[in-house]
Amino acid sequence: MIQPNLPDSKLPRVVIVGGGFAGINLAKSLRKAAVQVVLLDRNNYHLFQPLLYQVATAGLEPDSIAFPLRGIFKKQKNFHFRMAEVKSVDAANNLLETNIGDIPYDYLVLAMGSNTNFFGNKMIEEHAIGMKSLIEAVQIRNYVLKQFEESLLFTDEATVKPKLSFVMVGAGPTGVELAGAFAELRKYILPKDYPELPIHLMEVYLIEAGPRVLAGMSEETSRKSKAALEHIGVKVLTNIAVKDYDGLTLTLSNGETLQTQSLIWSAGVKGMSIPGLPEEAMLPNGRVQVNDTNLIKDTNNIYAIGDIAQMINDERFPKGYPMVAQVAMQQGKQLGKNFCNVLKGKALKPFKYKDLGSMATIGRNRAVTEFAGIRLSGYIAWVAWMVVHLLNLLGFRNKLVVMINWVYRYFTYDRGTRIIIKRGAANIVKLRQTIYQADPQVPQITQTP
Amino acid sequence: MIQPNLPDSKLPRVVIVGGGFAGINLAKSLRKAAVQVVLLDRNNYHLFQPLLYQVATAGLEPDSIAFPLRGIFKKQKNFHFRMAEVKSVDAANNLLETNIGDIPYDYLVLAMGSNTNFFGNKMIEEHAIGMKSLIEAVQIRNYVLKQFEESLLFTDEATVKPKLSFVMVGAGPTGVELAGAFAELRKYILPKDYPELPIHLMEVYLIEAGPRVLAGMSEETSRKSKAALEHIGVKVLTNIAVKDYDGLTLTLSNGETLQTQSLIWSAGVKGMSIPGLPEEAMLPNGRVQVNDTNLIKDTNNIYAIGDIAQMINDERFPKGYPMVAQVAMQQGKQLGKNFCNVLKGKALKPFKYKDLGSMATIGRNRAVTEFAGIRLSGYIAWVAWMVVHLLNLLGFRNKLVVMINWVYRYFTYDRGTRIIIKRGAANIVKLRQTIYQADPQVPQITQTP
Repeated sequence: MIQPNLPDSKLPRVVIVGGGFAGINLAKSLRKAAVQVVLLDRNNYHLFQPLLYQVATAGLEPDSIAFPLRGIFKKQKNFHFRMAEVKSVDAANNLLETNIGDIPYDYLVLAMGSNTNFFGNKMIEEHAIGMKSLIEAVQIRNYVLKQFEESLLFTDEATVKPKLSFVMVGAGPTGVELAGAFAELRKYILPKDYPELPIHLMEVYLIEAGPRVLAGMSEETSRKSKAALEHIGVKVLTNIAVKDYDGLTLTLSNGETLQTQSLIWSAGVKGMSIPGLPEEAMLPNGRVQVNDTNLIKDTNNIYAIGDIAQMINDERFPKGYPMVAQVAMQQGKQLGKNFCNVLKGKALKPFKYKDLGSMATIGRNRAVTEFAGIRLSGYIAWVAWMVVHLLNLLGFRNKLVVMINWVYRYFTYDRGTRIIIKRGAANIVKLRQTIYQADPQVPQITQTP
Repeated sequence: MIQPNLPDSKLPRVVIVGGGFAGINLAKSLRKAAVQVVLLDRNNYHLFQPLLYQVATAGLEPDSIAFPLRGIFKKQKNFHFRMAEVKSVDAANNLLETNIGDIPYDYLVLAMGSNTNFFGNKMIEEHAIGMKSLIEAVQIRNYVLKQFEESLLFTDEATVKPKLSFVMVGAGPTGVELAGAFAELRKYILPKDYPELPIHLMEVYLIEAGPRVLAGMSEETSRKSKAALEHIGVKVLTNIAVKDYDGLTLTLSNGETLQTQSLIWSAGVKGMSIPGLPEEAMLPNGRVQVNDTNLIKDTNNIYAIGDIAQMINDERFPKGYPMVAQVAMQQGKQLGKNFCNVLKGKALKPFKYKDLGSMATIGRNRAVTEFAGIRLSGYIAWVAWMVVHLLNLLGFRNKLVVMINWVYRYFTYDRGTRIIIKRGAANIVKLRQTIYQADPQVPQITQTP
């Protein structure tokens, strides 16, 4: 019979759901605490999401931005990991229901992060592809490379153009960085790899419903970023929303249409809440309402940190903190400290967000960063971007492999990992099927008879 | 309409099927020849098969042993690549039928290599897994790691033992190297990653129907290898064949049974021939009969090189040359030279195999090599093994990444890539399904309406 088989302990048990930035920082900060730490995740690795777009565009191998969770905590005695799907919370009985059995907790911390938000547009949800998981990024790489290969097999523009048109929706960091990487593919890879391809047919679009790209940053930075993107050949459409998409024809809010077989959706995320939480705490955006110590509304021992937590205690962020890695890391650490305070009988400290600024890279030698009012752009910003990301990447091996890929790419203009590990799916609907077939919601455990 | 769209050329067209060691060496050696070189492969990369076993055992990232075919030949003007499935040969009309349309050829060269040979045992074919492709290796990694994770969820030995028992069948280099790597996982990774696992329940078996391991090498080397494997805890069973396997119970020729959920089959390979070749040339082992210039029997312009070609012109190899990389590389180069000879009106030179010896690694610091009568074993052999493999690996980036992984592993005893990119399949039958669903035989190309 399947059961979590967690070791008995007299210490209070803190169950953390999700091994992202929030979850691992919390678990680490409980290293010395007199608690039993139980981390659950559907995957066995921590994913460094900021570099997902480089996996999707054949710049990095998937393994280099994933770090085995057991590896991170192998020295932490009070830590226990289980690979599991969380189903729901039984708050009344302090039980977490999962596909590997019920797990009793003293403190429960939800850190499941966020998922792609299609804002209820079923047509787009069915035909577009999001980029939040490693398998999605790998499948996008397979799919994009396959579009290039297939483009050689047709002579009529009407067929080739949609295969070579790549549309990012949403001009946040992900959309901007993806668009920049696609522009680089066109400039440096295609002419060498596909001399026979009508390169002029390849288009890279970045579509943003709002007035500017990188809306989280300053007007000036937005302007510079847009200019930089257009300079490398990205068609940036602002104040234009996507109305509909059938897998080939993309209809825009201004009535115009685009023909594309590749629509990558980075226009929004939503919290990944689970059943069993108090009605009042569940918000329409999938996040849960927490107080300034990350305690979920109307609960006394269930917390939420990172993307999934909506905390409003800062006039700079009236709608809650942005769903970014910085907030997740800081909330994880802070909650860890607070658990230690509780155990020592001390008072809890409310969360204060230290905004360390933000950055985005726009293709080779170009990035924008903002930190404490200081705005950098161009080469210096690009170097800063690389340093910051390398430092934050977990694991010495991963750091080295990523650095080598970057150095190699810098000098050769090449992208080493442009391989189709499985031949990509035939179309974007099949692509989504492969992903979800590959990553099913149902538990998949066999017990021998 | 789907068509190969190969550029017209007055030069004779050499169509090469397969981008393995034989195919790429042939294509390279035609670099300066007055021919149009067309390379077809179902994948867009060249796979360095000798290191597949390290991908399967979380030692290397898949991307590090795969090199994009277009990258290899980007400077070769007369080279054209198409990703395609070959269906059959229409020898009468010099046409190759593929899923991207018919391709006319002046010379056709078959270099499709070999695939796992289950010797017609349907039960084993259904429940065991081979290791010839990158997707198979990745899936084996996912599956093995999942067995470890799942073993924590059960308390009764009857359930846990089969999940922790890993059986290799066939003690050639692949079986030996796999068994060694599994023994290393048990020794260095499991105790750190899974302190709660009853490590003593993990068993690694190497089963060989013949009298000795590494039968291709000397008696002495076989003896040493067997001793080394047993020293690191591999149970080596020789003179024992596998009779049956239902996914859990493995029945041996001596009547004994083993309980295992992981049976990796490396007991044999067979040529991957295609329909349309002369009856007399097709051999029961899937190989095709060629003369000493690799011309297929009863044809005048169809050649076969590498694993698929059975050439008998050397008394050392009365049943044809072994299906190894060395033979494939040398035949590819030789045939290239011969094509150049033909174009210059010179006579063809018959193939002569230079046996460069063979080597196998048996876990950390242990390997065996034989070259020109010189036999090495232990540490020196292990270093030699690494140098030879690094030198033969294509691409500077790949060499660096692989080296870093090895250096890292040497000093940390760690295996960096033990991530489950997709949660592995529930059982070995589903595993095979995932692989074949992921890598279907049917063409998968969408044409926009």
